[in-house]
Amino acid sequence: MAFKVGLLGLGTVGTGVAQIMQAPQGRHPLLHEMSLHRVGVKFIDKPRTIDVPSEILTTNLEAIVTDPDLDVVVEVIGGLEPARSLILTAIAQGKHVVTANKAVIARYGDEIFTAANEAGVYVMLEAAVAGGIPVIQPLKQSLGGNRIRSVTGILNGTTNYILTQMQQSGRDFAEILQEAQALGYAEADPTADVDGLDAGDKIAILASLAFGGRIKLDQVHREGIRQVSAADITYAEKLGFVIKLLAVAQVPTGHTVGDAPPAQLEVRVHPTLVPKLHPLASVNDVYNAILIEADPLGQVMFLGPGAGAGPTASAVVSDLINIVALLKSGLTANTPETNIIHPLLACSHHHYAQIAPMDALVTRFYARFLTQDHPGVIGHLGTCFGSRGVSLESVVQTGFQDGLAEIVVVTHDVREGDFHQALTDIRHLDAINHIPSILRVL
Amino acid sequence: MAFKVGLLGLGTVGTGVAQIMQAPQGRHPLLHEMSLHRVGVKFIDKPRTIDVPSEILTTNLEAIVTDPDLDVVVEVIGGLEPARSLILTAIAQGKHVVTANKAVIARYGDEIFTAANEAGVYVMLEAAVAGGIPVIQPLKQSLGGNRIRSVTGILNGTTNYILTQMQQSGRDFAEILQEAQALGYAEADPTADVDGLDAGDKIAILASLAFGGRIKLDQVHREGIRQVSAADITYAEKLGFVIKLLAVAQVPTGHTVGDAPPAQLEVRVHPTLVPKLHPLASVNDVYNAILIEADPLGQVMFLGPGAGAGPTASAVVSDLINIVALLKSGLTANTPETNIIHPLLACSHHHYAQIAPMDALVTRFYARFLTQDHPGVIGHLGTCFGSRGVSLESVVQTGFQDGLAEIVVVTHDVREGDFHQALTDIRHLDAINHIPSILRVL
Repeated sequence: MAFKVGLLGLGTVGTGVAQIMQAPQGRHPLLHEMSLHRVGVKFIDKPRTIDVPSEILTTNLEAIVTDPDLDVVVEVIGGLEPARSLILTAIAQGKHVVTANKAVIARYGDEIFTAANEAGVYVMLEAAVAGGIPVIQPLKQSLGGNRIRSVTGILNGTTNYILTQMQQSGRDFAEILQEAQALGYAEADPTADVDGLDAGDKIAILASLAFGGRIKLDQVHREGIRQVSAADITYAEKLGFVIKLLAVAQVPTGHTVGDAPPAQLEVRVHPTLVPKLHPLASVNDVYNAILIEADPLGQVMFLGPGAGAGPTASAVVSDLINIVALLKSGLTANTPETNIIHPLLACSHHHYAQIAPMDALVTRFYARFLTQDHPGVIGHLGTCFGSRGVSLESVVQTGFQDGLAEIVVVTHDVREGDFHQALTDIRHLDAINHIPSILRVL
Repeated sequence: MAFKVGLLGLGTVGTGVAQIMQAPQGRHPLLHEMSLHRVGVKFIDKPRTIDVPSEILTTNLEAIVTDPDLDVVVEVIGGLEPARSLILTAIAQGKHVVTANKAVIARYGDEIFTAANEAGVYVMLEAAVAGGIPVIQPLKQSLGGNRIRSVTGILNGTTNYILTQMQQSGRDFAEILQEAQALGYAEADPTADVDGLDAGDKIAILASLAFGGRIKLDQVHREGIRQVSAADITYAEKLGFVIKLLAVAQVPTGHTVGDAPPAQLEVRVHPTLVPKLHPLASVNDVYNAILIEADPLGQVMFLGPGAGAGPTASAVVSDLINIVALLKSGLTANTPETNIIHPLLACSHHHYAQIAPMDALVTRFYARFLTQDHPGVIGHLGTCFGSRGVSLESVVQTGFQDGLAEIVVVTHDVREGDFHQALTDIRHLDAINHIPSILRVL
């Protein structure tokens, strides 16, 4: 008997999922033990690239999540509502859920996993982060022997495409964004991507899995790539770096990864100067990558397509196969009598992680200043930094722009709070016209 | 109640495993539910870097695998015997097995998995391939929605270290090998590594998992790096390549990855010219990487430390955690009454895959010839290749060596059999002195 799957959404990803399920040959044998039972769409009669029997199509999504015949609901409609309510209803009806919805999980993970644990069902989300790259599953099932020190990712394909194009062509952000929009790599409203919100959702989810605590999304520092200019990319290049939008979750620098779980976590998204020889530096275009540092493992990196119908559908179907494997082997908590649940697939943590304030971050900085071309400006800058305890690695006058001298500063590791205090002092200097960019350095 | 683990071997990896188990804090909570019950060693009194209670140490390995109290046996003694017999005894006694032993699994996988299926136990082997990189688990659990087209790996750290050093220093194989032996990166008898045997074991295991058929190890083409010279590395570099020892398992070129499982598989290990921009080209030193191409996923790559105590122990413990998760949730086939087994963790295939003969391989070749410095030699070479249907991309006389002209040839995609027939013809040419290297090109 095949297990019955309900699919919410038949857009790009939904179509990809249905295509795999309709052609199980040559894939995992468990695909033969699931069937696409109902598919929720907005318009029944819309022309489609896939042939789905019209009798299983419905516009009534509520009817799918409450259908007593269904074992699993796949949510790939995206957005916050009705996705959140549909997921919660499916859970309340004792159905397992597979979702690709990072926005819902990052915001309502607490509510959703609490409900899932009470109902004894699984909520699986491999597709929510980094598209087709298996990263949720390895975090849940392959790294448990380790104490994780950091998870650093290139998690947003749109911004990585834009930065790669800027790097390769020397052109500026706005121009490349427009081009990316024309090619369909960026949305008409690019805010979620270019302002780091999408990457913020994803790193919150990874942080939660890696460090075993829930994350309040509004505590995640999210900074996008709008401020990154062609000039910065050029100077970074000369200094031996490329600029990437990194999403980072880590135990603060200087804290040992020891017996006790870390008291605080850093969880942040920001454009970052990455040394050219660093494994993340060569991850280009729409590719995603996740680098995990752990003890005693060392560094492992996962690289692959971070979006797109095929990769995302691959991740969704992998979750479906895992759920069907459990259903088939009798391992579900669905019946209150047995109450067996797989401890690696269920969400086991209930507390919120303490997020370290950004001021406490210890990092290197790159900053570009436009100043009056007065003698002694570099000295004044140096004094301001020095008096706040910010030690500099290099100060270079790189040239002139619109009659102003351009100065690029790179610091040693400093406390972010100290650096910003120094910047406040510097902004009061007469000679300072403008600070067009402040970037962190990996 | 903690599940009881018996550890066979307290060398580098065994010590790493014991260290993780002795300090479970800050790692997965399931580590608190397992205990190190017995440890098998060669010498009880050997000085050790780890403090293991002497009452759990024993030199009687047979007593461990037959101990009725044990739930899981971890085999990290390596080698073929007694490892194979101990694993089989443990299975016969109804114990789950975790092993890091690629040699045993690649040779006796058939026997071992058949026994495990009959006994209803799991045999887990994440540590057998690519050290700490999670790759067995993703292949079993994360890629099932796909039709896999190829698995290409840098799976041997020793040879990758040697090739990287040759590349970076311009020095020759023998010199770097000696240095690697002095540093402990290569064994005193380096055969298994430098002749591609170790990588052959590993790709046989990966092929079996990726394509779902058992592999006869003697059908795996294994070619090592002894023939790679500093000259080849220099010419490869000029042509835009680096040389890597690749282990490849793939559906033959030109065969679609369609509804039916592939009729034949290529499984092979050989030094290969890899384009500098290819993701595997920048995997250096003792790092390992596995690139998987699948439909509809596209390409994903896993990168990390391929050996060492910490990484290998991380993989062993990940398997232990997965087994304990199943034991805890009641999902084991251990009791014949219930007979529930997790279909993603058990070995489900029983047939042998058909391995395509190397002659049928379609690939590009790089070959270096030493010839008499006669006019017309390049023409003769071209004629020999042409008459066997081998189309050339470039023929370059690169210089002279010991009074002989050195000619480097790169072909287009050709049938390996045709290429070798052309070489046989060429060896009969009067002007040909020697063909010091023949390498495939990715």
